[in-house]
Amino acid sequence: MQIDFFSARARIASNVHVTPLLRSSLLGARIGCRLFLKCENLQKTGSFKVRGVLNKLSQLDDIARERGVITISAGNHAAAIAWAGAQAGISSLVVMPATASKTKVAASRAYGAEVILHGDVKTAFAKVRELERERHLTFVHPFDDEHIVAGHGSAGLEILEQAPEVDVVVVPIGGGGLISGIAAAIKARKPSVRVYGVEPEGASTMRQSLDAGHAVHVDSVKTIADGLAPPMAGELTYEIVKQYVDDVVLVSDDEIIAAMGPIYSRAKLVVEPSGAAGVAALLAGKVPVTPADVVVTVLSGGNVELSEIGRWVSGEQ
Amino acid sequence: MQIDFFSARARIASNVHVTPLLRSSLLGARIGCRLFLKCENLQKTGSFKVRGVLNKLSQLDDIARERGVITISAGNHAAAIAWAGAQAGISSLVVMPATASKTKVAASRAYGAEVILHGDVKTAFAKVRELERERHLTFVHPFDDEHIVAGHGSAGLEILEQAPEVDVVVVPIGGGGLISGIAAAIKARKPSVRVYGVEPEGASTMRQSLDAGHAVHVDSVKTIADGLAPPMAGELTYEIVKQYVDDVVLVSDDEIIAAMGPIYSRAKLVVEPSGAAGVAALLAGKVPVTPADVVVTVLSGGNVELSEIGRWVSGEQ
Repeated sequence: MQIDFFSARARIASNVHVTPLLRSSLLGARIGCRLFLKCENLQKTGSFKVRGVLNKLSQLDDIARERGVITISAGNHAAAIAWAGAQAGISSLVVMPATASKTKVAASRAYGAEVILHGDVKTAFAKVRELERERHLTFVHPFDDEHIVAGHGSAGLEILEQAPEVDVVVVPIGGGGLISGIAAAIKARKPSVRVYGVEPEGASTMRQSLDAGHAVHVDSVKTIADGLAPPMAGELTYEIVKQYVDDVVLVSDDEIIAAMGPIYSRAKLVVEPSGAAGVAALLAGKVPVTPADVVVTVLSGGNVELSEIGRWVSGEQ
Repeated sequence: MQIDFFSARARIASNVHVTPLLRSSLLGARIGCRLFLKCENLQKTGSFKVRGVLNKLSQLDDIARERGVITISAGNHAAAIAWAGAQAGISSLVVMPATASKTKVAASRAYGAEVILHGDVKTAFAKVRELERERHLTFVHPFDDEHIVAGHGSAGLEILEQAPEVDVVVVPIGGGGLISGIAAAIKARKPSVRVYGVEPEGASTMRQSLDAGHAVHVDSVKTIADGLAPPMAGELTYEIVKQYVDDVVLVSDDEIIAAMGPIYSRAKLVVEPSGAAGVAALLAGKVPVTPADVVVTVLSGGNVELSEIGRWVSGEQ
């Protein structure tokens, strides 16, 4: 498959940030590599999701734009749809599981989306399909869509420009949209770069898909990283990951929490648990790196409930 | 006085970060301006202090370098001396008040300084002078020094390059070193920029100095912003502030705490109370700005005790 990442990037460029790539000498010393953080927590709406969503919305025809879009999300995709819809003058309806983070529900509403809270991730998906038919809305998949993947790839192009000497890129995996875009964009230009995905042990759908040889659905997920918890890998994203990603490793919730402390105290950045998964895998030695390697990991999001920060980061620094 | 900011910048360039200047649309909308954050919390050692200190150390002669340096600090200057000394192969002795933040004491020791905890800020100053004589060390003043001010001015040059359209710059004031460097560097190049200083109500030494017509010492200070709490304005920094700074405004500790929540939750950045003072003054309407103004405020530091974050930012977002 040939995805035109440069066209996608050009379409969204005026609305998204080129996020900073920050060196963290201290975290790098702990891991044993030259570490850089790609700060998508500093992206519009606090996550990378706007990259793909803006690109997708730009592809809709006039009738679809007028009728509006619908999606499902535990949070960051919802906020991105709400915000990008408002930018483009497209109304948005978002179904979120009843357990969704209050901060993320409030953000989606504040950006202008209609939000319906409904059941768990699986029943919410059925609700989306029902509302899509009833209201003649266009469903925007949170990850399994070529235009979403193409938009997310812009983060990969930025990494290559900001750190041309990059050897390793480590990306958290939810449904696989971000890593698909980054891996495909980078490998086409610099095939020697090793790209690793990271999933929570309690939501290892891409790891299981690679082992099974096809994209799998699971019955339940359990992790504090709500952004990495969709109960399936995408069909498209599975194929891209199989082709371009060197390996997918797993981290425990405890390893994610252990990574959040030094990201706050040393890198001075606010991340949500999902956003810390890459650093967690590196700190836990799950990704093979050498001291000479230039390693980039993506802090994919920063939308955290402030009241929970104290619980997560009051421990070891 | 003519300070050569470009030479200072060139001397330190290979050791400090050009810190990001990040747009915050949401905070800007709340304030009523186009707001940018100059992220010195992301600087080496977590504050701007390394800029001036590296420049100062580069000016020492061989005998002084061999004997080592001594200073006094509540924290960020100590860490900067320790780290920059280690970079330059110069040993450092730091006297800190007994109440200094544990995080900052630990950081200074980790970077390689000898740390002595002694009394309060005023008695610690006497201790420094005693040790300086006994051990033949060179005293590096935390702010009242031309080389320190010259190094800090590099942040002002970066602001002009990163936001050439800047109208207003807002800078927290402790002893006045940072604002002196920034104001003098910017006003020499773009005199139309308005520069405002911000002090805590409980440590308003520069405000009192301007009112009195000379640099004052005070008997005691009381603020959560430990980085803004020296009990005097500098003689040199007072003269520069008097010449170049448009006004110095005061914020309460409550206003500082109220600013920290949205800096964490919206800008996704970890700041210490001192680093939030500029945003606090803007949110509280203490700095005159218009919606058309491009306003830069310096997040001067991010060295916070993680265990205290929950207390500060669990409230309104």
